[in-house]
Formats: sequence, C-alpha cells, structure tokens
Amino acid sequence: MENLNHYLDIFMNALEQNEFHNEPQELYEPINYILNIGGKRLRPIIALMTCDLFGGDIEQAINPSLAIEYFHNFTLMHDDIMDKAPLRRGKASVHEKYSTDTAILSGDALLVKAYQYFEGLPAEKFKEVVSLFSYAALTVCEGQQYDMNFENQAEVTEDEYMKMIFYKTGSLTAAAFKIGAIIANASEEDANYIYSFGKHLGIAFQLKDDLLDVYGDTEKVGKMHAGDIFENKKTILYIKALENANEEQAKELRFWYNMNTQNIDKVYSVENIFRHLRVDHLVEDEIIKHTKLAKDFLGKIQGIKNKKVLTDFCDDLIGRSY
Amino acid sequence: MENLNHYLDIFMNALEQNEFHNEPQELYEPINYILNIGGKRLRPIIALMTCDLFGGDIEQAINPSLAIEYFHNFTLMHDDIMDKAPLRRGKASVHEKYSTDTAILSGDALLVKAYQYFEGLPAEKFKEVVSLFSYAALTVCEGQQYDMNFENQAEVTEDEYMKMIFYKTGSLTAAAFKIGAIIANASEEDANYIYSFGKHLGIAFQLKDDLLDVYGDTEKVGKMHAGDIFENKKTILYIKALENANEEQAKELRFWYNMNTQNIDKVYSVENIFRHLRVDHLVEDEIIKHTKLAKDFLGKIQGIKNKKVLTDFCDDLIGRSY
Repeated sequence: MENLNHYLDIFMNALEQNEFHNEPQELYEPINYILNIGGKRLRPIIALMTCDLFGGDIEQAINPSLAIEYFHNFTLMHDDIMDKAPLRRGKASVHEKYSTDTAILSGDALLVKAYQYFEGLPAEKFKEVVSLFSYAALTVCEGQQYDMNFENQAEVTEDEYMKMIFYKTGSLTAAAFKIGAIIANASEEDANYIYSFGKHLGIAFQLKDDLLDVYGDTEKVGKMHAGDIFENKKTILYIKALENANEEQAKELRFWYNMNTQNIDKVYSVENIFRHLRVDHLVEDEIIKHTKLAKDFLGKIQGIKNKKVLTDFCDDLIGRSY
Repeated sequence: MENLNHYLDIFMNALEQNEFHNEPQELYEPINYILNIGGKRLRPIIALMTCDLFGGDIEQAINPSLAIEYFHNFTLMHDDIMDKAPLRRGKASVHEKYSTDTAILSGDALLVKAYQYFEGLPAEKFKEVVSLFSYAALTVCEGQQYDMNFENQAEVTEDEYMKMIFYKTGSLTAAAFKIGAIIANASEEDANYIYSFGKHLGIAFQLKDDLLDVYGDTEKVGKMHAGDIFENKKTILYIKALENANEEQAKELRFWYNMNTQNIDKVYSVENIFRHLRVDHLVEDEIIKHTKLAKDFLGKIQGIKNKKVLTDFCDDLIGRSY
C-alpha cells in the first residue's frame, strides 16, 4: 500500500497538530492516549484518498478524516469496557489505564468532538455529511448490540451475521468513502457507488479477519491463534461449519462453543471439523463474492479516472495473510 | 406555570409518537424506559416556548425539542453510572435495571439519535443549531468531569464552581433557548440575548437547587434533606461558608466534609455553621444577582412582544420552595 503512505502522512500530521490541550485535562488526556497508540488509520486514509481520487481539495477532507478516526476511537473506548478488554493494540485499554468512568466520559466527549470536526464544511455539505455520519454511527451502536446479543443466542444465521458485521464495521468504512466523495463534489450516483464499494469491501475485510483468526500467519496477525474459538465467538467460520455439519459434527461444535476453557483440545477439535468441512474454502468464496461485488460497483463510477489505486487497495486488504 | 402546560402537552404527545420501535430492542427498550420515567421536561418546553414567543412555527421546533430531551437523558444514563446512582426519579436507573453495558451503549445510541432529530431543519439552520448543540454537549461533558474532579480536590473556588455549574447545567438550558430562537428566525442579537438570559437563569436555578438541599421543603423537594452534606458535595453553600468562616469553623467544616458518615451530628454541626454565617442569605444574594442579570438580557430583546411568560417562568423557577 505504498500509494497510501502519502495520505497516511497527511493524516498523522493533522492528528498531531490537533492533539487536545483543552481543559479539564482529566477528560482530554485519555483521548490523546488512545489516539496515539496507533492503528491502521484505514478509515481516515479512505476519506482522504477518495476525495483526492474524485479530484477534490484534500485540505477540505482533513478535518472530516479526523472526525472519522475520532468516532472510531470513541467506539473502541466504549467497546473495550463492554468486552472487558484489558488491552488495545498491545497497550492498556482506557478503562484499564484510567477508569471505567473516564472511558465513558472521555468517549462521550470524543464523539461530540467528531461532530465538531465537520463544522468547516459549508452548510449543504455539512448537513449531508453529518446525516450520513449519524446514520453510520447509529448502525455501529446497533451492530455492537447485535454482536453482544449473539453471545447469548443459541443459533446465529448467516444473514444475521452478515447484517451485524456490515453494521459494526462495514457501515463506517462505506461512510468514509462516501464522505470523501461528497467533499470532492462527486455526482450523487458516484457517491452511492463508492458507498456500495466500501460496504462490500468492509464486509469482505471483516470476513477475512474471521478467517485469519484460524488460518492466518499468527506471528504477523499479532493476536493469539484461534482467539475467536477460545472466546466462543460465532464468527462466519462457526456459522458456515454449522450450516454444513452432520449431526455429530454439529453436536461437537455446540459442545465446545458452550464451554469456557483454555484447553488446547478445544481448538484442535474445532479446527479438525473446520478442516473436514473445508470451511476456509467456503469463507474464501464468500470473500471473493463480496470483493467482486465491490469491484462491480467500482466499475460503474464515472468520476474517477485512475481506479488502480482502489483495486490495489482492495486486493491488498483482501489478499493479506495477516 | 399554567402557561407552559400547552407546550408540555405538545412535547409529551411528540415524545409518545416518537417512541422507539427500532431493532435491536435490547438497545432501544432502555431508551424508551428512561424517557418514560418522567422529569420536568424543562429544556424541551424552553425550546418550544421560545420559538413560539419569537413568532416562529412551533411545528419546526418539535423534533429539535425531542433532540434536546434525548441528549439530556443520554447524560442521565451515563452520569448515573459514574455517580453509582441506583435510582433515577424514584425508579431504577438504567444501569441498575439492565446493566452498565446497556446504559453505556443505549446512551451512545440516544446521543446519536439526538443529532438525527435536527435533520428536519434546512441546511443553514441545521448547521447553526447542530454546532451550538455540539458546543453545549461538550461543555456538559467537561462540566461532569469538573464535578468529579471536585470530589478529590481539597479546595474549590467560587469561580471554579460557577464555571462547573454553567457547563454542567446552564449551557444546555441556554442552548435550548437559543435553538428555539434560531428556528423562529430571531435576529442574531436577540438569539444571543436569549442565550445569556438562559445562561444566568440556568445558573440561578442550580444555585437554588443547592440551597433547597438544606433550606427546602423536604416533603416537596422529594429528596433526602441535606443529601449534599452527607455526600460531601462542595456546593455553593459549602464554598460560601468556607469563604466566610473563621479558622475554627473552617477546620470543623473540613473535618466533616472529609468524613463519610450517616451520623446526624454531621448535618447538625454543618448546618449550625451555615446558620451562623448566614450562608442562606449569601446564596440568595447570588441567586438574585444572576436572576437580575438574566432579566437585564431579557430586557434587551426586541423580537418578543409579551415577555411576561418569560419573567413568570423565571420567577417560578427561582421562587420555588422545592
């Protein structure tokens, strides 16, 4: 993703310039903390890149790209509380380092800050972008709720799962693309096409994440191998497996996914069923389907001359082994 | 406040019409729950009334008034977690009835919903109102942080305290007035005057609340007598007392405010000092000062013919004995 370093540099510079020095510092320091512990910065890069590709003024997309990253980090602060996650990108999560109250309140402030970072846009665009942003923000909340519901739900259908991952991760990605397009004065059709491109790319990206939990290069993934299995997460791997399992296999899968254990036998047994059912191929097919859908929408866009940056971006995200 | 029943009826009808039936219900049911357990609905009434008084179309202020009430209830959901409050208006608080995770996530969704309820406004007004709303929202977060800081802060100055209560409660009240004015196409000067009116009224209202904790009609207040003293809350009463105390009185005040006890001697001793120092008069003077400031700003407004509704509103809020 060499091409993207340019956008990343612009974004990182803006992030640094906009570090919060406001009072009370007890509210803002945790915000600077989470913003500085890294991450791929994919969503702000997407907004900057899309604005640029549609021939827009990238300067106008800088604060909106910050808004998108602020929103994403607000969700991380609150999600980490709900997920009882002690770590975020290898460092202490905000509620762990400070307190739950801090993670709640600083998160709230960061969400409001995100809205404020659209205020540089002229009124018409401000309304269009903020409305889209609120829609995406609400789907993220709904997606998080569905995700938590799934933990206590005996069966999760593939449709339910696909909806959840679109809400929880695809929606904001799609919005980041469309916000870049709106700022660049793209036509309404093109703005909608790039949204659909982002939607299917986001879904494919999340499915790939699920796949890498078991089939990834553990050293590069930077997470524990099969963490999702240990946590009984009903990811696409589990759902595809159950769809194709015979009675005995289904019984065994349900047995393990109802058990909280760190016993390695669990991973061995579950992965054995996955292997027999060729779950990796089934999921790969799903990823290919959504990648193709994404590229079909990309093909319809009129206002971007050089689409190679986007097809490369797509291939890099989906082709990654970590 | 007979005059206001009309606005309250309009608001309550809108609130009922807009009950959330969205999915997932685990996210939206707690929102309906908190919105239905009552409250004075002062802020939405303020927005509707102000729009009406400036000759605006009250219909256009209905959704914004819902937005303001949604925001207020979002803060209650999150504040109750931080304050470990088991009750809200005599009923179980959201985190108590459901869970902390629910109170966090449903609160987040409600904040985003608030923003969405401004989307009926035309673009220029949408931007003006949403920017004002974000400013108010951020000050509320900052005010809550200052309030929490004060718990661990040995001394709180009167200036710090006044800033905190403006941020935590006055700011949203002031914004509610101004939002009503903007929707009614009030002049910029008038919109700013009504904002300042609301700001000082909001401050006077909070000071009155502090006063009533000790000097109110307990049965009517509906809260425990001297609850702030038991909780060691450094309200204006405590701050005024310390400002005027001799060395011995100051020592005794600090002694009691560093002790967590339900012993009635604490209230007896603290109130005894308050009485000697005539703290009630000192606070009354402060309330009168801010009420006068409010009315001065009201006097400057050109676009409202009949100001009696607002002076009555002011007198009712400040004159209340509960």
